[in-house]
Amino acid sequence: MADRLKIGVIGAGRIGKIHTENIARFIPQAQLEGIADIKLTPEQAAWAKGLGARIVSPNPDELLHDPSIQALVICSSTMTHADITMAAATAGKHVFCEKPIDLSVAKAKTAIAAMKSAGKNLQIGFNKRFDHNFARMRQYMLDGSIGELQVLKISSRDPVPPPLTYIAVSGGIFIDMMIHDFDMARFQAGSEIVEVFANGVVLIDPAIGKAGDVDTALVSLKFANGAIGVIDNSRQTVYGYDQRVELFGSKGAVIAENDLSSTVKFYGDTGVIGEKPLYFFLERYKQAYIDELASFVDAVQNNKPVAVSGEDGLEDMYAALAATKSWKEHRPVLVDEIRNDPDAKVGLSTPS
Amino acid sequence: MADRLKIGVIGAGRIGKIHTENIARFIPQAQLEGIADIKLTPEQAAWAKGLGARIVSPNPDELLHDPSIQALVICSSTMTHADITMAAATAGKHVFCEKPIDLSVAKAKTAIAAMKSAGKNLQIGFNKRFDHNFARMRQYMLDGSIGELQVLKISSRDPVPPPLTYIAVSGGIFIDMMIHDFDMARFQAGSEIVEVFANGVVLIDPAIGKAGDVDTALVSLKFANGAIGVIDNSRQTVYGYDQRVELFGSKGAVIAENDLSSTVKFYGDTGVIGEKPLYFFLERYKQAYIDELASFVDAVQNNKPVAVSGEDGLEDMYAALAATKSWKEHRPVLVDEIRNDPDAKVGLSTPS
Amino acid sequence: MADRLKIGVIGAGRIGKIHTENIARFIPQAQLEGIADIKLTPEQAAWAKGLGARIVSPNPDELLHDPSIQALVICSSTMTHADITMAAATAGKHVFCEKPIDLSVAKAKTAIAAMKSAGKNLQIGFNKRFDHNFARMRQYMLDGSIGELQVLKISSRDPVPPPLTYIAVSGGIFIDMMIHDFDMARFQAGSEIVEVFANGVVLIDPAIGKAGDVDTALVSLKFANGAIGVIDNSRQTVYGYDQRVELFGSKGAVIAENDLSSTVKFYGDTGVIGEKPLYFFLERYKQAYIDELASFVDAVQNNKPVAVSGEDGLEDMYAALAATKSWKEHRPVLVDEIRNDPDAKVGLSTPS
Amino acid sequence: MADRLKIGVIGAGRIGKIHTENIARFIPQAQLEGIADIKLTPEQAAWAKGLGARIVSPNPDELLHDPSIQALVICSSTMTHADITMAAATAGKHVFCEKPIDLSVAKAKTAIAAMKSAGKNLQIGFNKRFDHNFARMRQYMLDGSIGELQVLKISSRDPVPPPLTYIAVSGGIFIDMMIHDFDMARFQAGSEIVEVFANGVVLIDPAIGKAGDVDTALVSLKFANGAIGVIDNSRQTVYGYDQRVELFGSKGAVIAENDLSSTVKFYGDTGVIGEKPLYFFLERYKQAYIDELASFVDAVQNNKPVAVSGEDGLEDMYAALAATKSWKEHRPVLVDEIRNDPDAKVGLSTPS
Repeated sequence: MADRLKIGVIGAGRIGKIHTENIARFIPQAQLEGIADIKLTPEQAAWAKGLGARIVSPNPDELLHDPSIQALVICSSTMTHADITMAAATAGKHVFCEKPIDLSVAKAKTAIAAMKSAGKNLQIGFNKRFDHNFARMRQYMLDGSIGELQVLKISSRDPVPPPLTYIAVSGGIFIDMMIHDFDMARFQAGSEIVEVFANGVVLIDPAIGKAGDVDTALVSLKFANGAIGVIDNSRQTVYGYDQRVELFGSKGAVIAENDLSSTVKFYGDTGVIGEKPLYFFLERYKQAYIDELASFVDAVQNNKPVAVSGEDGLEDMYAALAATKSWKEHRPVLVDEIRNDPDAKVGLSTPS
Repeated sequence: MADRLKIGVIGAGRIGKIHTENIARFIPQAQLEGIADIKLTPEQAAWAKGLGARIVSPNPDELLHDPSIQALVICSSTMTHADITMAAATAGKHVFCEKPIDLSVAKAKTAIAAMKSAGKNLQIGFNKRFDHNFARMRQYMLDGSIGELQVLKISSRDPVPPPLTYIAVSGGIFIDMMIHDFDMARFQAGSEIVEVFANGVVLIDPAIGKAGDVDTALVSLKFANGAIGVIDNSRQTVYGYDQRVELFGSKGAVIAENDLSSTVKFYGDTGVIGEKPLYFFLERYKQAYIDELASFVDAVQNNKPVAVSGEDGLEDMYAALAATKSWKEHRPVLVDEIRNDPDAKVGLSTPS
Repeated sequence: MADRLKIGVIGAGRIGKIHTENIARFIPQAQLEGIADIKLTPEQAAWAKGLGARIVSPNPDELLHDPSIQALVICSSTMTHADITMAAATAGKHVFCEKPIDLSVAKAKTAIAAMKSAGKNLQIGFNKRFDHNFARMRQYMLDGSIGELQVLKISSRDPVPPPLTYIAVSGGIFIDMMIHDFDMARFQAGSEIVEVFANGVVLIDPAIGKAGDVDTALVSLKFANGAIGVIDNSRQTVYGYDQRVELFGSKGAVIAENDLSSTVKFYGDTGVIGEKPLYFFLERYKQAYIDELASFVDAVQNNKPVAVSGEDGLEDMYAALAATKSWKEHRPVLVDEIRNDPDAKVGLSTPS
Repeated sequence: MADRLKIGVIGAGRIGKIHTENIARFIPQAQLEGIADIKLTPEQAAWAKGLGARIVSPNPDELLHDPSIQALVICSSTMTHADITMAAATAGKHVFCEKPIDLSVAKAKTAIAAMKSAGKNLQIGFNKRFDHNFARMRQYMLDGSIGELQVLKISSRDPVPPPLTYIAVSGGIFIDMMIHDFDMARFQAGSEIVEVFANGVVLIDPAIGKAGDVDTALVSLKFANGAIGVIDNSRQTVYGYDQRVELFGSKGAVIAENDLSSTVKFYGDTGVIGEKPLYFFLERYKQAYIDELASFVDAVQNNKPVAVSGEDGLEDMYAALAATKSWKEHRPVLVDEIRNDPDAKVGLSTPS
């Protein structure tokens, strides 16, 4: 058994806390060395120490410059991701970075190149690939059961929208929410997205429209391997987090349904009542968050390629930017239009 | 294509009407020749003529003595089944007889023997064998998928109890209701029941208890092939007709769930709501009633053994009488105790 | 009870046979008066007489001019639909016409107008609306359970493609196959389609591509009520006829799954195996074919509006033609582009 | 937040290891203080120290006499359970004891009484009550949804039999395996079992029969509240661990199905294939093992009654002994026959 991988976490917000606790408690091959957050509170500090962190600091540099730390998990705000990644490359540390790497494609590419030059691993936090259902589905694709993929369908719906203040700086539904589904689509198809056509409408909250975004969206896809597909997103359901994927191919189809809190069904005079889907991502992807970090640790320790590379993160961003453009210009958009655009970046302005 | 089998129906009550309409409309190989009911109403007569019946009469003898009629479907009251069957044997007609043949085992045997001597087919109306689910299940048993049967479980629950006046003369839940499940058990197991132990309680309506019967019953079974099993019955559910069977064997298990009126599910804030099981036997076994008669017609026309023989009806009755005895005497009862009892019959008296 | 509606059927091909048998056997309020097919064979004639048809002829005029016939069911080849409908209007007969009314929108409009002037009912044969699952789904929409519709999704996949000779004259997948799904979409949404964007690819059989058609298609939809949606079609599955619909709204979602031949599941060492969907439309929509004609008869006899009007047939055609145009021109197409085009018609030429 | 409950674990076999790891990693309110096993290996010692145990010893007395340890988790061999429990009572420590407390009812009672006198909590390790499905089911019972319970059904089947050497000393299937289901039955019914009738057969492995045991068993139940029920057990399935419960009552029914490793289904030409149930108790009850100890810790820290008391353990044993007697004597047996028998104990001899 190799020594534990010594990890520092940067950013102690919601997702940072999840990763930190997972490292401390659920990943035997990892060791929580430190945690840094520029707005570190006394409560956060106490919590971090309780989990055994040796370094607890408001200054990320303490982790970057600590020689014993081998890897960083970057959960700070998006605009810091690329800079910290590049600093980590310089410091010779492996990086697990929450998505997206940066709002600018060029800067994201620079950060990825820096990690590559440094010969260190960079994994992007697309946790859904590690979900037990979607991982099982991928096996069916890989073992040939489905044959040639023909149609891919993804439904991805959140129970409640994020705060409007968040939406205003989110880059829009395609880059903020559907980017997960573009990643899932690429993961399951094993092929790049070449073209998208996006419909986006405001059906849930007019304030989302005023913020320049939509709350309901549906994007048609074409893949390099010839398959076609569709993703639909909604910011609000009454029945919980809806996360389903369907692959249809020449030899069969595979459908992944939602996870439920129990298998119990009640047979009453008004019908047969089963559980709703698990409420949201914390419930649904609890294990997936553990498994993605365990996979990163395994890749670092055993010189394997990471499961979700920086290039994956770039491709997902291309698709999301192409969808945003398609929605704004109301036409099918080739992903190459983004790939070949040196100035491509997530825009925050309202649509024209 | 053979000529149509010319059939007369005796008894125009609820089940008689179903068979009559099925013969007239849904079984191309059968022809409705006549119908007789000793309490024939003008409405019944008009209905029967509308279906094309040549003979419509209050006198069953008109069907028995009509030379062109080849087969009789006996749906009159239970106490007439054996006598009409014997008269049909004498008249050289095939018989499809609703269960039970008679309340007395001896008389049922006589009627069966008469049919055998006459060289005519006798089929008993255990319609559930023809249900698409249970027939499919039987295929799994026959094709070896399940291996050796080890445990059989049947749940059979009615949505509403019959009228108390009916219960009082029904012979009790084991002979009136569970006899269908004993037949299903024997059909699926492909083996005779050798011993039963019955629990019966009154949990739904005390008046059923006063009538000398129970409304909730559970019977443990032992089969000749070594398997064991259980049947539970209830006279009342709030969610519709519950008809499920489970076979567990050395190579796998097979479970038949209820039929629903649609596959639609509603995802709302209180859960996921699906349809209740189909309401009662008319809905659930609509096609099975057609298929059992079509099978009878096929057996007659093509010299095949009937799917449910007089001996099957006898064995089912033995099991039901053994269960009744077990319940009354509160001990396991060998079915041979009934098989070897020349005086065995359905008793209507209250339990001691 | 009203007298039976006297019906003549024109066209004794596959779908004509189904309607004829349904009228003769399963719709008590209807009476089969006659059947005409210009290529009538002796076998067809014998079959029609066996069902009680008074008139059996190779000449449709015999039905059109028979004074006792009140309604015609038109199942002849598509190019004859409009002419026969107009002749029926002149003859004062109600019409149930298989889809489409005509390949030319203008001619279809003329036929619809003729029926309207004659004051007779015209119903188009979109049978899927009468499916038990989709009808149940519509109830959930109508009773407000779903709230405001936001997203509609339809999967519609055939087990096997039609013959290439058929495809060559079919007008293409959007008009031949997906037109059913446009009708379903409009039916469930209760709103017209205003825009479509179509992707169509050849993934199953290159010969379909050579015939100028595609075998796999996915169309994004916008509805007048603001909802968005998607339909995907495939000409070939290995697991049977896939017919699912999903409605997602402000108060909940409704999903209609496929029908299966039984509820039986086998639990073995390789997994839990359930039935495939029913094989094809004859199996899946057996009852829906009966119910659509019973609905037509009811509308005629009781002066109700028909369930699927000529205008419905037109709107479905508009959507299908818009999808075809979208596919050819690779851009979103407003349905108004077709609605306002006096020359709109189904083209049979290969795509540019 | 209270201080963590300091716990020592006695016995480092399979189940001891699970509890130890759960205490160390998954129960924030508990602290692993020590572990003792009379056959402690160096590997076990290293593992225990790695988990942070302060005391690691082959001598259970070191835990019993350590003043800082507040509670003991007893996972040693069955014959030591009662003695250690009594010593713990003397030492003033709370006890979580794996089932059964003892093979002798009298000795079990003495141990329970000792804990009661000491004023300390005693919880028995019936983990299935904490399963998410069965706990959810119990809520439906408690909130009145089911109404009055009428019929309870439990299927409990293991994927593989234990070693014959284990079976020979296990006390038989009713006390070794079905005791879990008697506990589940009592838990769900909220009522004591008053009578049992047992069928037991050897259908899987004749060697199990030679060892004086059966491998397939079915027990009819009567409850004090009037309900009836049935439990079936099998020592071997080909499809994984089968753990299902069904409650049927006056207002509805509740069914708990198996847990699966994923929701993914494959639609292929041989059918629709879903996952098998989770393989065995380690997979199915992983979280339940955590939750039962967390519940114990909570009861100790917050002066609540334990979820599964010593009396529960006794009642479960009574039912299991009654079932064993019923099987041997082939008659219904009142549980009072065991309750009132001062010499009742688990017999290891072969059946007469």
